Amino acid sequence: MTDPEALDALISGALAGSRREVGRLLSIVENQSEDADTIIARFYPRSGQTHTIGVTGAPGSGKSTLIEKLALAYRSQGQSVAIVAVDPSSPYTGGALLGDRIRMPELAGDANVFMRSMASRGNPGGLAQATADLVTVLDACGFERVLVETVGAGQSDVAVSEVAHTTLLVNMPEMGDQIQMLKAGILESADILLVNKCDLSGAQRTASLLQALLETGPGRSPCGTASDWVKPVLCTCATEGQGIEDLVEVIEAHRHHIREGDRLQEKRRRALISYLRTTILAAVSQAMDDALHLPETDTLLDRLLRLELDPRTAAKQLLPELTARLRK
Amino acid sequence: MTDPEALDALISGALAGSRREVGRLLSIVENQSEDADTIIARFYPRSGQTHTIGVTGAPGSGKSTLIEKLALAYRSQGQSVAIVAVDPSSPYTGGALLGDRIRMPELAGDANVFMRSMASRGNPGGLAQATADLVTVLDACGFERVLVETVGAGQSDVAVSEVAHTTLLVNMPEMGDQIQMLKAGILESADILLVNKCDLSGAQRTASLLQALLETGPGRSPCGTASDWVKPVLCTCATEGQGIEDLVEVIEAHRHHIREGDRLQEKRRRALISYLRTTILAAVSQAMDDALHLPETDTLLDRLLRLELDPRTAAKQLLPELTARLRK
Repeated sequence: MTDPEALDALISGALAGSRREVGRLLSIVENQSEDADTIIARFYPRSGQTHTIGVTGAPGSGKSTLIEKLALAYRSQGQSVAIVAVDPSSPYTGGALLGDRIRMPELAGDANVFMRSMASRGNPGGLAQATADLVTVLDACGFERVLVETVGAGQSDVAVSEVAHTTLLVNMPEMGDQIQMLKAGILESADILLVNKCDLSGAQRTASLLQALLETGPGRSPCGTASDWVKPVLCTCATEGQGIEDLVEVIEAHRHHIREGDRLQEKRRRALISYLRTTILAAVSQAMDDALHLPETDTLLDRLLRLELDPRTAAKQLLPELTARLRK
Repeated sequence: MTDPEALDALISGALAGSRREVGRLLSIVENQSEDADTIIARFYPRSGQTHTIGVTGAPGSGKSTLIEKLALAYRSQGQSVAIVAVDPSSPYTGGALLGDRIRMPELAGDANVFMRSMASRGNPGGLAQATADLVTVLDACGFERVLVETVGAGQSDVAVSEVAHTTLLVNMPEMGDQIQMLKAGILESADILLVNKCDLSGAQRTASLLQALLETGPGRSPCGTASDWVKPVLCTCATEGQGIEDLVEVIEAHRHHIREGDRLQEKRRRALISYLRTTILAAVSQAMDDALHLPETDTLLDRLLRLELDPRTAAKQLLPELTARLRK
């Protein structure tokens, strides 16, 4: 735990606009230590101004370049931008799927652009929580646009769409069969669909296929959450800057759309419920890990191994021990 | 909840060998209702005799045919066999990836072969728990070999490897690049690697590639769990019955291997810990769902939306409410 005065100094520095202090706070928040509680308690009341844009899609679809061009476009409009890259990890090894951190040379010298790569962690829930906390800090520090990139490995994308106000799904031309294999949840949680690298052949066919999926397939909004936002399919070529202007406009249109009526409140409400759920499950999981080192748990396991007790009854016996630890 | 006498009659019938009663009990257990507690409490003490074989691998690799041939081989040795097919579901729609249930014509008339397809459910944890419970019932009912098939969609495979005593990973020839994309956890959790459809070209190359991955790559056993089981790579052509005899022998060798020393106890211990964890997390998740309908939670969410309270503090305030519900 950081010395409270040092933490206070970091928080004041970050709120005053010091990038160095922002970076140090983000590291603390990312590690989800107790200090993260203090930091979020201080920053959350100052949040709620930024527009968060989730960028998801398969590796190789050109997300980093797209984000760089989007960030440049926002900068030319005078808006400050933060970029968060999220790497999920494989269940066992903890190794990141993408070895290299993104590099964005055109933005490197700009003091109003903040870039951050998140270290990988075991479970997508923990990642979603840490991402939400990072966005809260960046939001409170006054960044007007926060771009969150994920590598398109499934669950973490769906989780990130809960943090983001606008979610982009980046596709490539000629993915053909792969598009049909898109997890339903990813298409459903996207607000804007892109065919990037549209200079390659097959871009138009891919755009048509996506359009068809949106109209007839799993891309339709789920029942009971009828939305009047018609998801657009855009063609971009990020390396050439082609289509970026249109994209910025469409994102802006979506930003206005969700600010009408109760939509933003509903979106925030869903995100908060999801956050509470992952936070609480992470706490229980941690309590479970701790409990496994207790002699009582060893006794319980021995009885299970001797078939004197069944595992469902054992779970019920373990619960009071866990909940007692959670109450501390 | 089923009438206790009716449940008793079902349990007695199943233990006496009635397939119809086994089927009905499995349906109750799969739905994870309160009756599942009663059933598992009655069956778990009678379990521990069966050898459970997990069969995982990409869709189209021929798992169902392989399982059918394995089951026939066990039947010709006079052993009773149960087959459980597990379908994971996409996070949003709840729709199964595989539309059709497996059909195994050669086994359909055999009273000593029991087949079961599990309905899909939302989270891989719940699936792992329900699978473990089903295996417990089948084990107690005297099935000597239980074959568990998963569709190779990632997390559920790793979970199933915890339920199984021996895990097979079924590959196809000429997957080339895909093999290198294999999730590390899946290769690590497999005990025997197969190249099925070995009549197709590229089988030998695929086998060599797998062998190389085992020797140098993520397929090696993780540090601290040093095992002296050398994972074999076998070539099979299930449709022709080719390689099945060898496979049965290798599975038998692995069965003997894990029965030496403390290995089986250690494996069961890990599986029990995993079961306790998923059961408890499922209970907390359910309590969370229930809590979301309480007026107190609404008040909490409203304060969060007004930025009067931050989400980490809110999670701490929600915990006592949840744990109180779990103690009931």
